[in-house]
Amino acid sequence: MSGDFQKNCNVAEIAAEIKADSFLMASVSGSMRDEALRKISDALAGGKEAIFAANKEDIDAGIQNGLSEPLLKRLKFDQQKLNDCIDGIAGLISLPDPLFQKIFVRELDEGLTLEKVTCPIGVIGVIFESRPDALVQIAALCLKSGNCAILKGGSEAINTNRALFRLIHGAGLEAGIPKGFLTLIETRADTQELLGCHDSIDLLIPRGSNEFVRHIMNNSSIPVMGHSDGVCHIYADKAFDLEKAIPIIHDAKTQYVAACNAAETLLVHRDAAARLLPPLFERLDSSGVTVRGCPETLAIIPAAAPASSDDFAAEYLDFIISVKIVGGIDEAISHINRFGSHHTDCIITEDAEAAERFMLLVDSAGVYLNCSTRFADGFRYGFGAEVGISTGKLHARGPVGLAGLVTYKFKLYGSGQIVGDYASGKRSFKFRDIQPERHI
Amino acid sequence: MSGDFQKNCNVAEIAAEIKADSFLMASVSGSMRDEALRKISDALAGGKEAIFAANKEDIDAGIQNGLSEPLLKRLKFDQQKLNDCIDGIAGLISLPDPLFQKIFVRELDEGLTLEKVTCPIGVIGVIFESRPDALVQIAALCLKSGNCAILKGGSEAINTNRALFRLIHGAGLEAGIPKGFLTLIETRADTQELLGCHDSIDLLIPRGSNEFVRHIMNNSSIPVMGHSDGVCHIYADKAFDLEKAIPIIHDAKTQYVAACNAAETLLVHRDAAARLLPPLFERLDSSGVTVRGCPETLAIIPAAAPASSDDFAAEYLDFIISVKIVGGIDEAISHINRFGSHHTDCIITEDAEAAERFMLLVDSAGVYLNCSTRFADGFRYGFGAEVGISTGKLHARGPVGLAGLVTYKFKLYGSGQIVGDYASGKRSFKFRDIQPERHI
Repeated sequence: MSGDFQKNCNVAEIAAEIKADSFLMASVSGSMRDEALRKISDALAGGKEAIFAANKEDIDAGIQNGLSEPLLKRLKFDQQKLNDCIDGIAGLISLPDPLFQKIFVRELDEGLTLEKVTCPIGVIGVIFESRPDALVQIAALCLKSGNCAILKGGSEAINTNRALFRLIHGAGLEAGIPKGFLTLIETRADTQELLGCHDSIDLLIPRGSNEFVRHIMNNSSIPVMGHSDGVCHIYADKAFDLEKAIPIIHDAKTQYVAACNAAETLLVHRDAAARLLPPLFERLDSSGVTVRGCPETLAIIPAAAPASSDDFAAEYLDFIISVKIVGGIDEAISHINRFGSHHTDCIITEDAEAAERFMLLVDSAGVYLNCSTRFADGFRYGFGAEVGISTGKLHARGPVGLAGLVTYKFKLYGSGQIVGDYASGKRSFKFRDIQPERHI
Repeated sequence: MSGDFQKNCNVAEIAAEIKADSFLMASVSGSMRDEALRKISDALAGGKEAIFAANKEDIDAGIQNGLSEPLLKRLKFDQQKLNDCIDGIAGLISLPDPLFQKIFVRELDEGLTLEKVTCPIGVIGVIFESRPDALVQIAALCLKSGNCAILKGGSEAINTNRALFRLIHGAGLEAGIPKGFLTLIETRADTQELLGCHDSIDLLIPRGSNEFVRHIMNNSSIPVMGHSDGVCHIYADKAFDLEKAIPIIHDAKTQYVAACNAAETLLVHRDAAARLLPPLFERLDSSGVTVRGCPETLAIIPAAAPASSDDFAAEYLDFIISVKIVGGIDEAISHINRFGSHHTDCIITEDAEAAERFMLLVDSAGVYLNCSTRFADGFRYGFGAEVGISTGKLHARGPVGLAGLVTYKFKLYGSGQIVGDYASGKRSFKFRDIQPERHI
């Protein structure tokens, strides 16, 4: 564990120190956190030569090690990415403080007032891919939400990550933020040790392959937020509009095939198949997409490949789509709830009632009408940024921005009340909402 | 697994059927769920002779098996408990529907509107002690929040639980609720099998001893909500009011010692000790409470027993309290964050600034000023009922009522939008909040 400011310590000890700082973080004002974000933004702008130089080392090593073109593209940290990071921080500063928000205020009795108030989660460990801009986003989101972050980035980005960490950590300290607000760890051994620190770490957010996320879930008793799969569906209903359907399906499949929100399976209403499939196949085929169809699909599109049963649970992350013809909306919903990954699923229809049925009954973080599944993203939802996408149903679901990085506590302000008086009937509760609970 | 309506099936098959019903539950209207609660209330009132007869069998067996007096008291289901259950259901009916609530509505672009909307979690397994009234509360809370509940009650209450289950399940079906809304399981083997049903069960809520809750957490990959310990503290600050302090400490310790929200440790500011401890000791001693003190405490109260270091992490659930003198509020906060269980902790002070500091920095579900820790309870918070208390920080914290039994999904209403147009700059996001996010 390092970041060049902590040496000769083991991970558990450092995590315990960070935990102690996390209690202090809960009392840092929103204006101080925003001021720190401003200083961080300035430090990144001022330190760009150091960042770019470090990034060049990583890129050179990556080329030498035969890193693929898409991975090199993610690893690259240039002026454009720096601008995006700085814009992202400015966006975060402009968002309201997620802390100290009163979810409700209730007078239980005279002089006995209950408040449900937002507060930070505490210490969050984020393990992410070799994308240096992700380090900046995650650090900024955690700081804005009052959490301490322990970051482990991909090893290919080690020099860039160190340069970014130094600038961000230094600027945060200068603004008076407790030093434990940000820690960089670099080795797999440190990560492994981190998984055992359940007394100090409140939440783990692993990003990466399914296998990696499952490995983390199976090897730690710390709560994990993340997604294990992204098997997203599009269902073209009987009353679909061809002008919408073809661009949406094409975009959801091809706009970025490696993304978890790319569509993997198309379900088509039997009465819609003959009209939709031939022009769709032509469009997909011209973009190099392989169509793997059920027998009914093959009868309409003989040029398609036959789908095996495995195809309908596959996350291809590639230019392949499986196609199945279904008898109606309920069969589509059942298929999605059974084979999907509860990530993002879309219905294409002009029938408002069918749309509502689909959106109520499909058990996914995102249920869409007439638009691409690729919209499932924190930036596109207006969250400023995201730390990841959750396909779990507890705490946070879908893209996780600031709202997913806070929890709450109950504050009860009394003036000497004891429970014995209420148990004996001497006093009774009044339950008067001063500020009613509006949502969940 | 039974409830006399499902025979010759294994747990995994039944859980899968319940999962399928849970998707339908997500579309049952609030008025239908309330109507079902009314029918359940009527069925319980009308079926009371059958319930009392079944309860007599359990009580007789309990006496024969030498069950202790407190356990027999919890097992007893009489007219008073029935009235409480019926009042509880009436209270739940009067609460607003927790489902279909819009947390925010945001126009991302013209004709592209994002809604964050509450929905049920799905299938919830609750394992609880031999308290038949808990079955009624939990079933009612899960129904009101649109969840399917799989209940496993203590085996001593088997006859009462069956009688209650028959009435509740029958009344729910009569109101048109999908049959999977409630299932009763009875054997340990079924419970064990349930822990492996991670494809069908969304959440487990175990209630009972620490060991039991830990056993569940360690033997299932299903998310678990619960509390592992209840080591609650009271800190008497320098500026404490004796008239408040003594009744509060006495109530928090003695009003119901077996409760998780009973106080186990008292921390006292050094400057407050000489004034507080002698009269407090007298009061506690007269109620049969053993005081185990640190050396400084013993110097003031020589009649107290010496505390070992283990005492400050102990959940006694008995007429024992540990007492430690501290140098000030920050030492108290550090002690609580280190030795406490993040359940409920109280400061007694007349100093508003000290109170705010304590309530911000103590990392617990409940942070109290000048009132008994025993208030940490769903009924006393005005939730109508609770399924349990969570000391975890994710999803739900503290007493868990309706708000802790729902999650949300993102609904995105489009009219043909594709991500490619936004990536290329042909279109750009507008982010206009139609209904802003108010809380977390």
